[in-house]
Parts: sequence; C-alpha cells; structure tokens
Amino acid sequence: MHYAAILGFGTVGSGVAEALSIDADALNRKTDGITLKYIVDVRDFPDSPFAGLMTKDFSTVENDPDVDMVVETIGGVGIAREFTRRALAAGKSVITSNKELVATHGCELMALAEEHGVSYLFEASVGGGIPMLRTIAYNLGAEKITEFFGILNGTTNYILTQMFRNGMSFSAALARAKELGYSEADPTADIDGIDACRKVAILCSIITGWQMPPEKISVEGISGVSVEDVEFAASMGCTIRLLGHAFFERDGRVRACVAPHLIPAKYLLSGVEDVMNGLHVRAEALGDMMLYGAGAGKLPTASAIVSDMFCLAGDRRDGAAFAWGPTEEERCGSASDLPFAWYVRMAPAEGWEEKQTGLHLFAQKDGKYGYYTDEMTEEALLYKFAGQVILSRFRIIR
Amino acid sequence: MHYAAILGFGTVGSGVAEALSIDADALNRKTDGITLKYIVDVRDFPDSPFAGLMTKDFSTVENDPDVDMVVETIGGVGIAREFTRRALAAGKSVITSNKELVATHGCELMALAEEHGVSYLFEASVGGGIPMLRTIAYNLGAEKITEFFGILNGTTNYILTQMFRNGMSFSAALARAKELGYSEADPTADIDGIDACRKVAILCSIITGWQMPPEKISVEGISGVSVEDVEFAASMGCTIRLLGHAFFERDGRVRACVAPHLIPAKYLLSGVEDVMNGLHVRAEALGDMMLYGAGAGKLPTASAIVSDMFCLAGDRRDGAAFAWGPTEEERCGSASDLPFAWYVRMAPAEGWEEKQTGLHLFAQKDGKYGYYTDEMTEEALLYKFAGQVILSRFRIIR
Repeated sequence: MHYAAILGFGTVGSGVAEALSIDADALNRKTDGITLKYIVDVRDFPDSPFAGLMTKDFSTVENDPDVDMVVETIGGVGIAREFTRRALAAGKSVITSNKELVATHGCELMALAEEHGVSYLFEASVGGGIPMLRTIAYNLGAEKITEFFGILNGTTNYILTQMFRNGMSFSAALARAKELGYSEADPTADIDGIDACRKVAILCSIITGWQMPPEKISVEGISGVSVEDVEFAASMGCTIRLLGHAFFERDGRVRACVAPHLIPAKYLLSGVEDVMNGLHVRAEALGDMMLYGAGAGKLPTASAIVSDMFCLAGDRRDGAAFAWGPTEEERCGSASDLPFAWYVRMAPAEGWEEKQTGLHLFAQKDGKYGYYTDEMTEEALLYKFAGQVILSRFRIIR
Repeated sequence: MHYAAILGFGTVGSGVAEALSIDADALNRKTDGITLKYIVDVRDFPDSPFAGLMTKDFSTVENDPDVDMVVETIGGVGIAREFTRRALAAGKSVITSNKELVATHGCELMALAEEHGVSYLFEASVGGGIPMLRTIAYNLGAEKITEFFGILNGTTNYILTQMFRNGMSFSAALARAKELGYSEADPTADIDGIDACRKVAILCSIITGWQMPPEKISVEGISGVSVEDVEFAASMGCTIRLLGHAFFERDGRVRACVAPHLIPAKYLLSGVEDVMNGLHVRAEALGDMMLYGAGAGKLPTASAIVSDMFCLAGDRRDGAAFAWGPTEEERCGSASDLPFAWYVRMAPAEGWEEKQTGLHLFAQKDGKYGYYTDEMTEEALLYKFAGQVILSRFRIIR
C-alpha cells in the first residue's frame, strides 16, 4: 500500500482527491493500492468529505515515513518549491501540475529526486489531461522529433474560437471567457502567452534532455488579433490559434516561439475549439501525429496526476522517465532565424505598388490588404514591407 | 548492449532495420544500445545493405544467448506463432506488429513470456505508428474508460475519403486504392472489417484485462456504403467512416462492433482522411481525448516497434505493461443491445406514411428518403421500418 498527501486543496487538489476515489478500483487491482492520508492547506474545509484528512502543518507529512507520494498543487515557485524540496529530501516522490516550477526549476528538482532515489513527475503540467509528456518520453523516446506545434492554453483558444465563430471582438470574447470562469481575474499570463511559453519550455526539455529556459522562447500574445484578421484568415480557409511552436534542428539547436499562427483546414488542429488543447508532433520515422483533449479543468488535470501516481505505484515504475539536465546555452536558437510563410495585413501608404517577389495578395477590404508570403525570415519580411504600415503579421503552418 | 533479430524481411521488417539506424543516436544515448544481429527470412536479399545479417535458420537466433529481442514481422498465426513461442521459451522478448496473432493468441503468449521472465510487446499491432496501446495502458491505466471509437483501417478510410471528396463509387475508389498500393491484392480483410475487428479486440483486451475474442465483435464492412449515402450524410454535416466502437459498461460488460458510422463535423475524427487513423477515447475523469496519426506504412509501423524495443532496453522497463488474462465469456456483450441514433436510407413502399415516433426525415432525393432517429436498439429500428425496403442504415456518433 502507498500513502499519499495532497498539498493545496484548490481546484486541482480537490480534483485529485475525487479522481482517486473514481479510480480506486483500477488502482487497487493494478497496483499495491494508494490511500490518501493527508491534505495540507492553510484554510479550513469543515464541510469537505475529506475534512478528516486536513492538516495545516506540512511537517506532519514530511515526518510520516508511511507517506511515499506527495501531490503538489500549490502553484508558483515560492512555498511550492520549498515543500517539493523538503518532500524529495525526505524520500517521497512528488507529483505536480505546477508548470511554472517545472519550467524554471525542473532540472534541480529532478536531480534532487534522483539523489534520494525517488521521482519528480509532472504529466499534468502540460496539456492538462492529455498524455503529452509520457507519450513523448516513452513512445517517441527513440524518435527524432523535428517539430511540434500545439494549442497549449485553453483561455486564448476559447477567445479565438469565439472571434471566429461569432465574429466577437477580442475584448468582448475575453469578457465572455471571464464570465464563464475560463479566465483568471488577471488574464495576463494566458493572453500574453506566458502560460503557453512555460509549457513549450517543458516539452522542449523532455525532447532534448536539457532544461530549456522559458526566456529563450520568443513570445507574442493574442491581443493583436483583430476581427479583420479573423475574416482574412477565414477567406484563406485558415483559423488563427495561439501556438507553441518548436523546431529541433540537425545541429542540435532548438528554436521555439509562442505566437498566433494561421492553421490551414487540412490540419485537425485547426478544428480544436473552445478550451480544448492539441499537440501536433512531427518525427522522422513516425511522420505526423496529433494528441487532442481537455487541456485544463479539475478532473482532466487530476486524471493526469493520478496517472503519474499509477505509474509510481504499479509494476510499471517509471521514475526515471522525466529527467533532463542543465541548460545547454549554445543550443538555444532563435525562431527569428527560421523561414516561415507569413500572413500580413497592411494599410498601404499612398502609391504602394507591390514590386517584391514572394508576396501574394489574397484579400482586400476597406482599404486593407491581405498577403501571404513564400517562406522567409521575419527580417526578410520586414524588409519587403519597409515603409509600409503592417497592421498584423502571423506565421502560417505549412 | 542488447542484440536483436528480425523475423521476416518484408515491408515492416525492413522498416525496422531502417528505423533502428535512424534512431541509433537516441537509442545509444538513452539505453544500453541495441545492435541488430540477425535477419531471418527464407528469401535471399543479396543487394540489401543488411545482406550480411541474413540467415534462413531461425534456430541460429534461438540458440544465440546474446540475442534478447526478437522482432516478429512474419504475420499470420502459423510459423509466426511457433517462432514466437520458441523465442519466448528461449528467454527472449518478442516485439510484433502481428495483430492477428495478438488478437487470437495474445493471452497464451503473454503468459509464456511471463513464465520465462521476458516480455511480449505489440504497440505496432494497433494504429501503426500512433501510440495507442501504451497510452491506454499507462496514461489511462487508472481511468474508467467508458467508450472508444476509432478509424483503425487505412484502406477503408482511403476509399471512403475518395467517395466523399470526389464522389467516386465504392468500386472505383477500391480500384484506385489498389493502384496506389493502399490495398492488398485480396482486400477482403480490410473491406469487410476483419482487420479493424482484430484491432478492436486488442484495444478491448488492453482496457479490460482479459482477452476479447474477435468473434464476439459484430462486424460489418463498407461495401454497402453508396454514393447516395455519402450525399445524404454530407447534407447532415457528417462523414461516413468505418469505426471500431466499444462500450465498457458499469457491470463489466463490453459491447463492441465494427461498422460504418456517421460522424458529425464537431468530432475531429470526422476529418481524419485518406490512410490516416484516429482513436477517440472517453474516460470518466479525463473526458474526451483523441489520438491521430499514420495507422500503417513501413516507417510509422517500424517506429512503434522500435518504441517497444526502446522501452525494453532503457531504464524505462515496462515488460509487464501489456498483459491480460483469459476471456471472461460472461462479460462479452452484444452491441445490438445498445441504443444508438441511426441513419436510415429507404425506398418507401407505395403508400408509406411515417407514423412512427422517433424518426426524423432530413433528406429526400430520387424517391429515396433519409431519416435520422432518436436513440434506439437495432431491433427497435427494424420494427419501426417493418415492411419497408431499408437500403442502408448506419449508426451515428453522438
């Protein structure tokens, strides 16, 4: 029998308690069993069915030799990091959905886990319930992954879906997302791409085997996507989605960005709507593959956490699965150096006559021009439109 | 260092030899390394780059204590079964893409593997390169899976895509599939749903933990899908796809079928085209999830085989991952007992006046009527149309 503690009884933490009871049959049949022994939170939950497990003192968990799994759903890099370090040092495996902590301190925490013969697992930190990390680490473990692009943030996808489906403006769609509880009170981390950037960093680290620092990833949010862009993109048969996009080059360099992209309808990813997430992966032998599902939410996220606990508790021990080393600075490239096909919406200056090669006019409305381009770097693109007012420019998935 | 032998140097077998060299870097870095030592085939391949590894005598492999992994790509249940048994008995793990053998004798072979402390792995047997089995066994290992439906056969999906995209007849589309090499010389196993049925049996066995006999799965192929059905379905915003479809009920019963289904556009699966495959899974905590990719082909299938070899060779040993027990007869239910929404195309007899409840006319063309129904069993459906000529009837995914 394994004994678990949950740190933080918020949405995800309470979801884990619930999912453990939903999954109790399978856990007892396929593993040595998992019993939830403590829930640590500074708040009181007298009416919770789990009230009897509540404690405010982390050291109770830390000092209980029975507890071998600690689920950290506190979030952030302060107390969560401290408790994670202490739990690992006390010989307990830690399972988390905390993408910020994994993206910034994953390497240090995995090393600490290894030192103490335990595991630090975080399937839930990327793609919520969608099994992205273990799929990449196991099933594609021997593959040469060349590229991925994915919808990794539900809030921005909901907003963009509303803009496409109902012609809503960005601000109206954001207000609706807040109403429905799909957005945080302060939506900055979602809207500006910071949340997606952390997830891209984790995916890149799993693939390369070294910690990809989030600050090496160029990030652009969705606040610059207008209703006109939506109309122009639709006329090309594309949707616009905020994508995390990374390339793994032959020389070992990684070039990654988070930015709005146009996705042609032939990609299933272009049909991923509302708060759902999806990840498209390209690998040399496998070719193209996609994973789709709920990227957030109480029970889907809890499901991913329980899958980590299941792997720890079963015969199927995979403690070593998630492991990467320190950052290899010389291998952090810039997405700006890569050629892309671009979508450009511009309001041309008087007398603009497009004489450049590689630009293709595809739409014209209210004095605005929509172009798509041949593959070129961002710098080459800006050079071609020098002196003109570019209203928006987004990459196009090829 | 691990040493491997490949049995059968056809499309998949030669793909494995190739993929092992594509993946050599990752394999050497993340595992103890895998060296291909023998290729067993009765034919001669004097011009192959692997000519030096060829042998016609399986006992060379069987008696070489260095070889700890045997890749069986012979196919069928004759010699493939014998060599698999002998390899396992000699203490070698066996990795295969042989769906017929796994679907019919998987339980026996996994027991033999366990007896000798080795593994029998077959990720490549379902969904080609798409990591369906390990995703279900690991990531959803603790989940209550309630239902899956999937496009599990590329040939039939290619034919149906052609019928939708180009208005081709079934026979013209089949001829085109043969031309392009997407179909076997004898396409019966594909067209009639037998290939998909074996894959459904394997998926059900992984999920339930007991061997689901293929003959307990009701099977209907695609030869009854007409151009008129394609038109009617399109007018409802649906595609028609051959799906493997299974329900896992609370009482432990499994009800599964292979049959053409109408899929509404809101499901990404409805956009899975040509020879690609996809699997939609529903689970209690996770909700809806989908996997998409190349369901067949030399390198994608080889990629899945190499992923099994990778798991065996690495720290990430998961020999026990694929394991199920003998058939539990009392839990094999019939899909006929389940209520579905149905699509019906009929040519009504003189004086037909639809007085039944639960039938909804949605299209009428050339004297043919298209209905969709409320949820009802197949028996109830046939009762409602008693005395009428039903030209085709397919389930609709809800």
